[in-house]
Amino acid sequence: SPSEREGHSSTQSSHRLLAYSDALISIIATVMILPVAHTKVEDNEELRESLQGLLTTKIGVYLMTFLIVTVAWAAHIRLFQVVVRIDDCLALLNLACMMLITFLPYTFSLMATFPENILGILLFCGCVMVIGVIQSVIVLYAFSRPFLLNEQIQISENQTFYKHHILKVIMKVPIMCFFASIFSFIFFQLSYVLLAIVIFLPYISQCLKWCRSKAIGQVEETPDSMLFYTYLPNEPLSKERVEAFSDGVYAIVATLLILDICEDNVPDPTIVQKQFGGSLTAALRVYGPEYLAYFGSFATVGLLWFVHHSLFLHVTKATRFMGLLNTFSLAFVGGLPLAYQLTHEFPPNSHNELEAIQISCVIIFFAGIFQLAIWVVALYNEQETLHPYVRYGGREHVLMLAKLALYPCIALGTFFLTCILSKFSAPIFHLMEITVPFAFLVLRILVRLGLALLRLLFCPDRPDRRIV
Amino acid sequence: SPSEREGHSSTQSSHRLLAYSDALISIIATVMILPVAHTKVEDNEELRESLQGLLTTKIGVYLMTFLIVTVAWAAHIRLFQVVVRIDDCLALLNLACMMLITFLPYTFSLMATFPENILGILLFCGCVMVIGVIQSVIVLYAFSRPFLLNEQIQISENQTFYKHHILKVIMKVPIMCFFASIFSFIFFQLSYVLLAIVIFLPYISQCLKWCRSKAIGQVEETPDSMLFYTYLPNEPLSKERVEAFSDGVYAIVATLLILDICEDNVPDPTIVQKQFGGSLTAALRVYGPEYLAYFGSFATVGLLWFVHHSLFLHVTKATRFMGLLNTFSLAFVGGLPLAYQLTHEFPPNSHNELEAIQISCVIIFFAGIFQLAIWVVALYNEQETLHPYVRYGGREHVLMLAKLALYPCIALGTFFLTCILSKFSAPIFHLMEITVPFAFLVLRILVRLGLALLRLLFCPDRPDRRIV
Repeated sequence: SPSEREGHSSTQSSHRLLAYSDALISIIATVMILPVAHTKVEDNEELRESLQGLLTTKIGVYLMTFLIVTVAWAAHIRLFQVVVRIDDCLALLNLACMMLITFLPYTFSLMATFPENILGILLFCGCVMVIGVIQSVIVLYAFSRPFLLNEQIQISENQTFYKHHILKVIMKVPIMCFFASIFSFIFFQLSYVLLAIVIFLPYISQCLKWCRSKAIGQVEETPDSMLFYTYLPNEPLSKERVEAFSDGVYAIVATLLILDICEDNVPDPTIVQKQFGGSLTAALRVYGPEYLAYFGSFATVGLLWFVHHSLFLHVTKATRFMGLLNTFSLAFVGGLPLAYQLTHEFPPNSHNELEAIQISCVIIFFAGIFQLAIWVVALYNEQETLHPYVRYGGREHVLMLAKLALYPCIALGTFFLTCILSKFSAPIFHLMEITVPFAFLVLRILVRLGLALLRLLFCPDRPDRRIV
Repeated sequence: SPSEREGHSSTQSSHRLLAYSDALISIIATVMILPVAHTKVEDNEELRESLQGLLTTKIGVYLMTFLIVTVAWAAHIRLFQVVVRIDDCLALLNLACMMLITFLPYTFSLMATFPENILGILLFCGCVMVIGVIQSVIVLYAFSRPFLLNEQIQISENQTFYKHHILKVIMKVPIMCFFASIFSFIFFQLSYVLLAIVIFLPYISQCLKWCRSKAIGQVEETPDSMLFYTYLPNEPLSKERVEAFSDGVYAIVATLLILDICEDNVPDPTIVQKQFGGSLTAALRVYGPEYLAYFGSFATVGLLWFVHHSLFLHVTKATRFMGLLNTFSLAFVGGLPLAYQLTHEFPPNSHNELEAIQISCVIIFFAGIFQLAIWVVALYNEQETLHPYVRYGGREHVLMLAKLALYPCIALGTFFLTCILSKFSAPIFHLMEITVPFAFLVLRILVRLGLALLRLLFCPDRPDRRIV
């Protein structure tokens, strides 16, 4: 029986395997920002022009890679909601799967650089198909050793039905990729359409279902098969894995910055001797803006993580839609190294510098606003998704809202400041970023004061209903 | 009371904060391999010569940084074994602490590049001192709100004693750095001696204690204070955090490889047009060795993680000494990107190529042998550190030993092969790396056969004592 084998070493809890997979996938999703951030923007040409070249290809590649990798990650979550225990063989199969997932961004960037060459399409589709085959092997292997499966499937009498249903869902995407690779020989534009459908398939199928249910009334569903392997937006994602994935993205973004500093900003001893007369202080002073930009960016990433952490403390269940919003927020967080790179590489008081700050503001604003959107969506189903003490009303609710609103407000305010004040500069922007933590420290006090004031103004007769 | 506040949102479980810190610290520890790996080794000069320059500075910097960051990480573990719950303020203080820890490698590499300039020493010591101050503030803050503390300290009547003891231990290193920074003005060589003492302090003090106990007999210890904040090698580390830190290192090493490929190996469309007549296949064929090296290295990193994962499944408690051996193993794992870089950048059949393979073998050998050492040390205290079913004897025990011995044996074998066969080349080496997973798959069968054979040869009369 499965509980007897629980303590035995030949089957293992999958916890650490999943944590490692989350770490790998989150880093891979974020890595494609590097080619964007490392694109040298020349000083003499206009930022707008060079960014146009960037925006059309590299940023597009980054965002699409992020989405593709996230889709692979979501499939991985679903798979390991069915297979809950592992053994050596499954661990090795999963590592093979990871190896191919980490190769996806490269094949995709080949596809984007050479859109008319079918080699990129073939490589990408090949990777996806092999991943699909490996995942099918995992499912077949797990069903041949039922003690590895989810309790609910283990006790079900309908295991064969489950197996076929899951295999069908897993093979849907690889089979579409198979057709895409065949079409690439005939009419490659069609391949791109097919691949686009693959990525947005969950959302499209959900829309279609919703439309159908509105048009011809509620269709009956097979509740037995809906428990696993659906794309319903209200289906719970594993909250633990959403947190692990987000932590990975925030950690790699925070460290991509120091990675650049460690590689580029240790001056060469001979240059220090020649250009600065041996004075290391003078040589390092040149890098002043870099250090300030580093501390500012680290503070921003750290605080966005802090807000995310506070938010998910209150969340009891993450739905698929909340997961999607979280992905959008993380995609913008992954853009912060670009903001860091842009804000410190232009000469002070140039038009470019102001535009770089504005781009940073836009990135921070969207990263923050999608976090706020997660909260709003969670409030719609607050009975299911939130802890009781943060539901509508109460101080904790207001505090959470204030935390979430702080970054979008600051980003918006800074954006307008750059339009008005021509004296605004990157160092001021980074100093602002560094002072934001203090805003978070006084937020609790401000919220308390604000609530007291509101109470005094609107209902002076009601007794003070303190929660804390 | 603390249990009443358990569900309240103003204090929070520290689990996710620690996971995020582990991710940040593990990435930072590994990042300094990049300046080593990215050092261009010219084709025409001898690898040995150029490596001499590397070995003396960059590899030294990498290993020292790894050790320093690990010491900071160990201090972080100790701190959050005392402070078990957090609130917003502590989360922000911890992020500030992280920001300075991520800056340590940079200050250290400045120190190594300009050993005679006191600026490096001052920056490094400044960082350490500020980290110490922040950690002291965390302790003071937590003791002013006792519900954040460890249960054992919470119920103790001697809280003030604990507080002073912990502060004393925390401030030991920053105070030594303070003296080091003062001495740097007078006689900077002394500063380096002091800093070396700081890093090896735990091990030195442990040695001294051991010598004293041997010389004058067992000294009496204050058991009250020994519970927290000691450097005893048998003191348990948090097994969860050792795993999280190791996962971070393995994940970032595996992805540093693809990061390089994504940045460097997407050919420029104009170059493809000019040099290869528009044939993308021909252009990508040039990168063949890179792909092979990537898959080979990923397989190696993945399998070393797999062995580590198998090992820690059997471990119930990680002692500080096991943690140290784990750090050594991880430091060599972090060197794998260097192996990857070296093995694919030399022309085939050159003397350099063989030496690059030998270096890779040495790195893999040490990464594996330190894993084996963890197992050996764990066996010495098997009652405390291991699950019953893997203790001496039994098939699981032999299987674990076989898994741990596989990589050192293969690395050693390959090393000697390169000495004998002059035809050995990097592609063969990488193909070998890719086939190792299959060795792991058949290992279980081989162990079973081997055991059956041994039983048949030596004790044919004893009944078959199967465990599985």
